[in-house]
Amino acid sequence: MDVKGVIQERIAEIDAALAAYLPRDAYPRDIYESMHYSVFAGGKRLRPLLCLEAARVSGLDYRKALPAACALEFIHTYSLIHDDLPALDDDDLRRGKPTNHRVFGEAMAILTGDALLTYAFEILTSLRRDPTLSPAHILEAVAEIAAGAGVGGMVGGQVVDVKSEGKQVGKEVLEYIHTHKTGALIRASVRSGCLLAGGPAPLLAALTLYARKLGLAFQIIDDYLDETGDEKRLGKRVGSDKARKKATYTSLLGREASLGKAEGLYREAVAALEPIDKGTEILQYLARKLVYRDR
Amino acid sequence: MDVKGVIQERIAEIDAALAAYLPRDAYPRDIYESMHYSVFAGGKRLRPLLCLEAARVSGLDYRKALPAACALEFIHTYSLIHDDLPALDDDDLRRGKPTNHRVFGEAMAILTGDALLTYAFEILTSLRRDPTLSPAHILEAVAEIAAGAGVGGMVGGQVVDVKSEGKQVGKEVLEYIHTHKTGALIRASVRSGCLLAGGPAPLLAALTLYARKLGLAFQIIDDYLDETGDEKRLGKRVGSDKARKKATYTSLLGREASLGKAEGLYREAVAALEPIDKGTEILQYLARKLVYRDR
Repeated sequence: MDVKGVIQERIAEIDAALAAYLPRDAYPRDIYESMHYSVFAGGKRLRPLLCLEAARVSGLDYRKALPAACALEFIHTYSLIHDDLPALDDDDLRRGKPTNHRVFGEAMAILTGDALLTYAFEILTSLRRDPTLSPAHILEAVAEIAAGAGVGGMVGGQVVDVKSEGKQVGKEVLEYIHTHKTGALIRASVRSGCLLAGGPAPLLAALTLYARKLGLAFQIIDDYLDETGDEKRLGKRVGSDKARKKATYTSLLGREASLGKAEGLYREAVAALEPIDKGTEILQYLARKLVYRDR
Repeated sequence: MDVKGVIQERIAEIDAALAAYLPRDAYPRDIYESMHYSVFAGGKRLRPLLCLEAARVSGLDYRKALPAACALEFIHTYSLIHDDLPALDDDDLRRGKPTNHRVFGEAMAILTGDALLTYAFEILTSLRRDPTLSPAHILEAVAEIAAGAGVGGMVGGQVVDVKSEGKQVGKEVLEYIHTHKTGALIRASVRSGCLLAGGPAPLLAALTLYARKLGLAFQIIDDYLDETGDEKRLGKRVGSDKARKKATYTSLLGREASLGKAEGLYREAVAALEPIDKGTEILQYLARKLVYRDR
């Protein structure tokens, strides 16, 4: 199986769907341009890929999950735009490009984030027009994504992160930040695909475990690269966590130990997929790419 | 019928439901405190009241629509918090109280808005746990609210408003701003109540017409009060639209003509309710209060 080729095809499908949601001649033009700019600023489409593949291994034609996949990418993009704002991380560069507020101004960046977040739910509810999907399953998927993105998930992690800056935080708080800030939406990406398909409970449990391991590994590697990575290849400022005295795994455990933890989590993520019988090469590949990126 | 008394009871029920969604000892505490502060900063609960009453005249026990009503108030509150930010309207006072970012700081105000908006959809999807509600009807209501709050609704109006500041704008742009910035969510409040109840198409059409007239009247009166109102009674800075050269009906039509237009719209809103047979005293009262407030 040409996993790489399949993933490239999927990314092309995701990108086409995202573009169709963002017609550049729509009114008000400024906001569509601004949304388009950030959605097409070089994202790896990890969350959409996870959602589509979770839907597929749960027995659904993955194309049917494309709206949910796009919604997840919109939510991820909104969170980056708001994170980068001067009042928060005050970042000028993201994936090698000027951040949204550096191009469109702060007011538009705030509104662009709001627009993307709301649009995500509009797109999710558009799934009701597919008569082959169960409205009850759609609602489960939307609920999962709202919870993952919200105050008990991503936003909650962001709040604790902001509040912890410059403070000495323990392992517990650090783990809260990571499992929520990044982990929650990754988990929701995987789970929503399975829920939309109406996958059985044991399958949902296996995928949830995979997603949990993956989400934590992801953040540990992010921290590691922030300290050791190459600015040009990463396309963003490195060392910014340390400069802002942010709590990271690297600072807590040390470089080697945090890397070892991420690799252990990767192996656990792959092991979690064992009970699944529909072929998990793509989910395995995504986990590997995530942990071994840029190294 | 003691309309005033009924409305007061409903507001008490709405407030109790809102408070239940915002437990003050929940983690992360800071964000719950901040959400609570703005949700309980003196809102008149117009949107929740409209939603509950639209649900009732559509044949649903209005209490079943309480989660949707709360979601609408959360969305309204998020929009005010983000509107007040320094990068947007830069307001220090709202309903006589310091605005959210003046109390909790800009970073928290941005995150609080994000949290409230996302929480709204989490609450909306919680309606699926009510076995007497149809999942298809719930999805229709959620879709309606997402569209009303989004880039084709409230956020779109806000974008055009921001982009029009300091410019000479015509009647068309002004009407776009008003029907979207305030009108869209008012419309969605009324329509979502009816959709949740699975109300028939002619009823939905009558309620939609009522909401459209009401939404426009609301904004015209807002503009009028901004120019002529009493700062103390309004609890916010007046004359700010003029100072920022914002397009308003008052500046376009003059004070008397804009007042006349609002009163005409009020009469049209009430007339739109005529085909409804379930008793529309409350909807009539809400329209009257809205147009004749503070005068």
